[in-house]
Amino acid sequence: MRLARLIGPELEALLQESPGELAELLDEIHPEDIADLVGEFDDAHASDLLKALPTEYAAQVFERLDTDRQEALTASLGFDSTARIAAQMEPDERVDFLSIMPPAVVAPLLESLEKVDPEAAEEVEELARWPERSAGGLMTTEFISVGPELRISDAIDELRHRAREAEALDIVYVVDTARKLKGGLTLRNLLLADPSERVIDVMLANVISVPPEMGQEEVARVLGKYDLHTMPVVSTTGELLGVITSDDILDVMNEEQAEDVHKMGAVEPIREGYFDASFAEYIRKRAPWLAFLFVSGFFTTTAMRKYDHVLASVAQLSFYVPLLISAGGNSGSQSSTLVIRGLAVGDISTRDWWRVLLRELAQGLVLGVWLALFGVLRVLIAGDPMKMAGLVAITLVSNVIMGCVVGAMMPLLLRRIGVDPATSSTPFIATLVDVVGIVIYLGLADLLLLGEAHVLAKP
Amino acid sequence: MRLARLIGPELEALLQESPGELAELLDEIHPEDIADLVGEFDDAHASDLLKALPTEYAAQVFERLDTDRQEALTASLGFDSTARIAAQMEPDERVDFLSIMPPAVVAPLLESLEKVDPEAAEEVEELARWPERSAGGLMTTEFISVGPELRISDAIDELRHRAREAEALDIVYVVDTARKLKGGLTLRNLLLADPSERVIDVMLANVISVPPEMGQEEVARVLGKYDLHTMPVVSTTGELLGVITSDDILDVMNEEQAEDVHKMGAVEPIREGYFDASFAEYIRKRAPWLAFLFVSGFFTTTAMRKYDHVLASVAQLSFYVPLLISAGGNSGSQSSTLVIRGLAVGDISTRDWWRVLLRELAQGLVLGVWLALFGVLRVLIAGDPMKMAGLVAITLVSNVIMGCVVGAMMPLLLRRIGVDPATSSTPFIATLVDVVGIVIYLGLADLLLLGEAHVLAKP
Repeated sequence: MRLARLIGPELEALLQESPGELAELLDEIHPEDIADLVGEFDDAHASDLLKALPTEYAAQVFERLDTDRQEALTASLGFDSTARIAAQMEPDERVDFLSIMPPAVVAPLLESLEKVDPEAAEEVEELARWPERSAGGLMTTEFISVGPELRISDAIDELRHRAREAEALDIVYVVDTARKLKGGLTLRNLLLADPSERVIDVMLANVISVPPEMGQEEVARVLGKYDLHTMPVVSTTGELLGVITSDDILDVMNEEQAEDVHKMGAVEPIREGYFDASFAEYIRKRAPWLAFLFVSGFFTTTAMRKYDHVLASVAQLSFYVPLLISAGGNSGSQSSTLVIRGLAVGDISTRDWWRVLLRELAQGLVLGVWLALFGVLRVLIAGDPMKMAGLVAITLVSNVIMGCVVGAMMPLLLRRIGVDPATSSTPFIATLVDVVGIVIYLGLADLLLLGEAHVLAKP
Repeated sequence: MRLARLIGPELEALLQESPGELAELLDEIHPEDIADLVGEFDDAHASDLLKALPTEYAAQVFERLDTDRQEALTASLGFDSTARIAAQMEPDERVDFLSIMPPAVVAPLLESLEKVDPEAAEEVEELARWPERSAGGLMTTEFISVGPELRISDAIDELRHRAREAEALDIVYVVDTARKLKGGLTLRNLLLADPSERVIDVMLANVISVPPEMGQEEVARVLGKYDLHTMPVVSTTGELLGVITSDDILDVMNEEQAEDVHKMGAVEPIREGYFDASFAEYIRKRAPWLAFLFVSGFFTTTAMRKYDHVLASVAQLSFYVPLLISAGGNSGSQSSTLVIRGLAVGDISTRDWWRVLLRELAQGLVLGVWLALFGVLRVLIAGDPMKMAGLVAITLVSNVIMGCVVGAMMPLLLRRIGVDPATSSTPFIATLVDVVGIVIYLGLADLLLLGEAHVLAKP
């Protein structure tokens, strides 16, 4: 942002006076900074700037813009100029760009692209087959591959010829004539090998790869586990389809992280930045969950009403309701957080449910007893009778154990039935646990205290 | 894990019969998989295996083990063998390893390292100056740099000579004789340039860099923004100190994400995997927060008791307490989630507090009215009188607005006073909002209904 403000006016002046000089400057400016700048221009200015930039550079700027902006600029640039820019984008970015445009724009744009660069149009068709959030949707088809029988010196020549176009450069893949992945050569291998050796004698034959159907979160996990910078995508028949680079994985991780965090806070995921999302967007993403949780909470009222006679006979009982149910909710939040995170990073699978259950039962017992100590103290300080202290203690132990178990089992259950475990948000667990907690508390009170109301008369 | 089980017995057999053959196999096995395997061996077996591996490979396995395991193996390998392995680790990993060992181990280990590889010991000293979670703590000192006046062909030779030792290979940095960073050369630049050109005429002069003091979360943000694979770390005087690679950034992002998620669920961050952390560890990380939240919740009891006369005169009032306060807590959770995330990704800064406040006030109003519709319906269906419906509606609007404001402002306040905003966990916000919510509800009831108890007599 700061850089944009700084160079904005100068760039505009240059644009009007001598657009040719602009190109020379660009070697020194990262496209991300120009994209920031374009973000502050109006559409007419922005499309002038994009047209003045070398097309390859314009593509790098364009692919970094918000999708709303891309759509607006497509209109002001026209389909042909946009197609020329799109042809220079990385294939994976090109597909992402087209996938978010309205159908009325995509058809003529693809037609223009077909004319400008038939190969680029074909790449779109090939990549668009895969879901956006799969390995296939993340991969680029611009990588460098060589045959196994090539000499190292020829492989280096090949690399030199194709360096300008390929995105994934730090590893060269080795494929046979049927395009099956045979191995990989890092630049380190290439530089250290004798130029007269053959590729097959130098390459690493055991390359870690992923299938195109694999979900992007899982791809990020594999890449992170093996400390890789690039990851080949290979079909079931062993054919090399494309390559995923680590910068795309960083984006994936940010996206998945935002989604999980939002869901865990009971907000439908919002992709825009905090100040970029519109008012209506926030309401749309918040209101349904709030209403769902509120209506689920109706059962708390029902439960309270059911124990009307207990509440009426011992006035102090109602004073402890919020405190006792929140203890269950808080321990449930902790457990669900731990399990959701464990599932997300692959530490836990649904088959482990009974191990998780045993752990949570044990932790719930210890934590419940721990809180019961404070609870008893609280009752005694307030001057309420010993019986009340006993009730509070038993309720706390029960509620905390119940909270831990519900909080831990709910994400596993959701994963089992194919729903994102992060959906069992903290507020969702708290609402569930509230209802059960009230029933436990007032049920116990009914059992232990009823008919003894006189014992609990106020001091 | 699966691979480990598969090849475990075979590896053991090979280890006993012909350890020499092992080395030949290793080209095809990723050190991560051997680390998984070592995780299932006992210490004696594991150290035999590490000793049988080529030292460079053993180092790659060793740096992937859990810290507890590293400590145990240091004991069974002895200081000299461990030092030989440590000397072959990446410098940043070596420092991390030493930084988590107990002081009684570090001193003799450093002494052995000094003997085995004085340069490696010096690197430790240099890197250990920086906090673990800063750019300085993440960087490696094994990178390749060349002088600006070198010819491209000589730069390629230099690359070839140093390729074996350097971690960060996809960019070569250009430094002057004072080690000041002048620019960078990607391998693409090197491959495409005329071998007789000079480095200074080909390099990119405007390289994005970070200072060593920058926090790791911010480093991850910069690297992600500019889609970089490596990032130079430069002192205030412009000297190139080291290089951060994207695999370390993936680890950082996982670590920071885990921390934020745990904190937001009111658990002190746990670094171990779900099944790796001990029972005592879980209790230690959960019990203090539960107790803090529970004791804070005492105020709910105090507030309820204060409005004893109101609760006693209208029996139905207590039935709605859990429902009405949870509406405030849920909207507060949503707001705090949105703001914590916005702060984490840099969308919001504390200076924006009033813009956040205005947005949340407006959203709170709309969401409150939305929930009030359901609330009024609930009261009427239950057969409670119209006045009760009015009270529920006003309470809901007030509580939801209050929840949004508290939830949004608390993370900003924490950031302002230097505390991690994620500390304002969902349960923490809920507890805060519970207390205020009860006071609003019963205070309004006192104001609107008191002395009119007859109107509310049960139907």
